[in-house]
Amino acid sequence: MEVTKAVITAAGRSQRGLPVQTLVDRDGAEKRALEIVLDEAVEAGAEEVCLVIAPGDAAAYRAAAGPHAGRLTFVEQPEPLGYGHAVLLARAFTAGRPFLHMVSDHLFVARGATRSAKQVADLARAEGCAVSAVQPTRERALRFYGAVGGRRVPRRPDLYEVQQVLEKPTPSEAEQVLAVPGVRAGFYLCFFGIHVLTPAVMDLLAERAAQAGAGPLALSPALAELARRERYLALEVAGQRYDTGLKYGLLTAQLALALDGVDRERILAQIIDLLAQRG
Amino acid sequence: MEVTKAVITAAGRSQRGLPVQTLVDRDGAEKRALEIVLDEAVEAGAEEVCLVIAPGDAAAYRAAAGPHAGRLTFVEQPEPLGYGHAVLLARAFTAGRPFLHMVSDHLFVARGATRSAKQVADLARAEGCAVSAVQPTRERALRFYGAVGGRRVPRRPDLYEVQQVLEKPTPSEAEQVLAVPGVRAGFYLCFFGIHVLTPAVMDLLAERAAQAGAGPLALSPALAELARRERYLALEVAGQRYDTGLKYGLLTAQLALALDGVDRERILAQIIDLLAQRG
Repeated sequence: MEVTKAVITAAGRSQRGLPVQTLVDRDGAEKRALEIVLDEAVEAGAEEVCLVIAPGDAAAYRAAAGPHAGRLTFVEQPEPLGYGHAVLLARAFTAGRPFLHMVSDHLFVARGATRSAKQVADLARAEGCAVSAVQPTRERALRFYGAVGGRRVPRRPDLYEVQQVLEKPTPSEAEQVLAVPGVRAGFYLCFFGIHVLTPAVMDLLAERAAQAGAGPLALSPALAELARRERYLALEVAGQRYDTGLKYGLLTAQLALALDGVDRERILAQIIDLLAQRG
Repeated sequence: MEVTKAVITAAGRSQRGLPVQTLVDRDGAEKRALEIVLDEAVEAGAEEVCLVIAPGDAAAYRAAAGPHAGRLTFVEQPEPLGYGHAVLLARAFTAGRPFLHMVSDHLFVARGATRSAKQVADLARAEGCAVSAVQPTRERALRFYGAVGGRRVPRRPDLYEVQQVLEKPTPSEAEQVLAVPGVRAGFYLCFFGIHVLTPAVMDLLAERAAQAGAGPLALSPALAELARRERYLALEVAGQRYDTGLKYGLLTAQLALALDGVDRERILAQIIDLLAQRG
């Protein structure tokens, strides 16, 4: 399966401005948050990227894309009609082909040399099916995420066949539907913010958009339906996600990048210095 | 002396985008960097603020100004013709009156309850003259700042009469011209990024602009001339400045705000957590 297109959603009204935030990446280079997300997509094999944005943000986001500006296509979401609706707006761009999908308000810090999105895309290419990155997440954080249930793939401690998907489940829903044998008690497999999706997802979203009233269109129900129709895997990626839209989210992401990167010693010294000044 | 107008320079091409960076202030509120700078100006008594910007930035900066948007007047600097030129563009706005001047790429964290700009503005009001905030700064950092020479005001350990101003002096220039009795050896009084300036500064800048060729117009030579014409004080403010335009400048400023603010314990716990994950 070929994956050369990426769809990045950046239309969330509460997240406007996140792509233009400045961070220093692990390599010590100053970049806008968007460029770091695009680095991740391009390293995973994306040649063309569709950014779904709120109206009016294209110029600022193009300027924030650094060397990737030439790969970008913009699609505006005129009204905040939901995450699924934002993804569906990229249907013409994906043109019936599988695509990498990432959210723009997360930064990903992989544990090893292979970046998180590349781990997902490589697996999708090898297995020829949809793959969502997941991370075992404490029950009390379920309200922030979509979560999957399923069964572990034999002899692969990091791989699951998805059977169920729920958006922001309650703890009791999660316990009934999403408990996965082999995942630590009190933890569930929550979305990490990186997926490779097949064209069937666009078809499912289009069906639901046609049925729905004026309400917002979610992504998770379409993914739950996908799991019934196609093979759909969940990969526990070797890495961490940082939600930059949370309070102190940018600080946490920046500290994580710096403490994992070439400037680790310098940043540690600076923290100690700041603490000493406030002794 | 009344000070109710402020001029904030934000036209530096390398600093574009800094005002829209998101930070959590000491009070735990998420704000754009510009709003934090404007808080500082307004608390010092500024009722109207002129922002000198690069063309095209007005809409984004107005959106980043939070509750202060109604106080803003924008003046565009069409070409990067220097810091003095940027200040001079606000001449009509200042209308022959003294004004607070701050740079937009610094954040100020005062030691006590009185914010840095208010310390400067209150002194200017009381003394009826121009005042620049300064900070004793190591010789090796002279290349980043304007610096003043002068003599200590009797019985005021934090106050100096300015006699000389040099922009980014070399260590030997500084040693010859800017050594101030009472300032620690190897340290010089460098600008902090906050001034109250008198209308004479605008006149001096206009004279220099008329003389100069096409070259950039600096602020420091006009301030040096001011010191010869008027009483001009330098105040060692009780606080720290953080240059957000430097690499890791936003991280440092955010850490300083957080470690000085209501979320100190939470941020310390988070740093320890991040370090533990990378043990």
